[in-house]
Amino acid sequence: MVKQERAARTRHALIQAAAAVFAEEGFVTASLSTISRRAGVSNGALHFHFANKSMLADAVEAQAAEVVRGITEAARARQGDSLQAVVDATHELMGALAHDVVVRGGFELAGDCARRGEASLRTQWQSWVEDSFRRAERNGALAEGVSWADSARVIVAATAGFEVLGGGDTSWLSRQNVTRFWEVILPRLAGRRDLERLLSAGSRPSAPASAVERPGL
Amino acid sequence: MVKQERAARTRHALIQAAAAVFAEEGFVTASLSTISRRAGVSNGALHFHFANKSMLADAVEAQAAEVVRGITEAARARQGDSLQAVVDATHELMGALAHDVVVRGGFELAGDCARRGEASLRTQWQSWVEDSFRRAERNGALAEGVSWADSARVIVAATAGFEVLGGGDTSWLSRQNVTRFWEVILPRLAGRRDLERLLSAGSRPSAPASAVERPGL
Repeated sequence: MVKQERAARTRHALIQAAAAVFAEEGFVTASLSTISRRAGVSNGALHFHFANKSMLADAVEAQAAEVVRGITEAARARQGDSLQAVVDATHELMGALAHDVVVRGGFELAGDCARRGEASLRTQWQSWVEDSFRRAERNGALAEGVSWADSARVIVAATAGFEVLGGGDTSWLSRQNVTRFWEVILPRLAGRRDLERLLSAGSRPSAPASAVERPGL
Repeated sequence: MVKQERAARTRHALIQAAAAVFAEEGFVTASLSTISRRAGVSNGALHFHFANKSMLADAVEAQAAEVVRGITEAARARQGDSLQAVVDATHELMGALAHDVVVRGGFELAGDCARRGEASLRTQWQSWVEDSFRRAERNGALAEGVSWADSARVIVAATAGFEVLGGGDTSWLSRQNVTRFWEVILPRLAGRRDLERLLSAGSRPSAPASAVERPGL
């Protein structure tokens, strides 16, 4: 049991270190010895857990996907099919990109030339946003003349933009930036019935980014 | 003179080939021999023109920056301080990202971990968009309650999103996608006086992407 705990801790440290190195250097340049040194473990321990760099990258992306799933599921559980779920999820996702190295590393990998075609994180987010706007449209929560597809297009593009621009300047990921964005966008997307109730700053504005649920450790 | 022409042609072929290889493989993986082979020139000829890979990347970015400058200057020359200039320029920029390998390669380099901090192309575009909305605000062309900064934030984020998502799926760069985007956004950003006159599809909807002016060759 103690041994298993130690193994889980080593695996966790390796994934965190790998995510940080992938985010800083990209997949191709990242070296396994930089990663093991950063994790404070031996090269042998790294190879015990991960046969190669690709498997380490897969683990980072899988863990990031879990965090994104946690964010979207929690937002929907709290807010149902209201647009507030999308507003909340964008705030939490941008917070995770700013403060959770695994999420940042996962998205960097998804956009990396060397790993293209495996961009499942962006696809996962896009699918959820589209599904959310489809539900909102069905419930009459969208403004007249605006379709779920149009709404999703705007939100998917803008959040992808925040993600990549935030890699160079984290103010793009700030709650203030995302709030101002929604203040501009919501009056165009939300039906009149809902607009007054919707909170551009998110329904949990004071939740620290670190409070985002994390799977595993 | 004939010799100079030949040299200019070789340089041009090298920049085109380098842009394509950088776009496909990223800066780190791209090899000089792949680039010279693709350009149909010898390694010696490559080294005559470019001392190393960084200088080749600089040349790609510089040429992409010229194309972007051509797009923004032409849009402003035609449309002045109207929001139509921004609409037109986004269409032309997305067309260039889809069809001009130097522009695609230049933006890929701007987003590449290995060359970060030199993201001048995105900065150049952002500055122009901000300046354009500042002018529009000064002329009373923005909707009430919407500032130039808010407007620029939405457009800069969405176009960065189109750019990166378009790397995997070019439909994000299509005229149809950009038109639908503006159809959603313009009623929120444009003042009533101008809204009816503005064309979401751009004022030159039939201009082929290849008609975008190119500096040099």
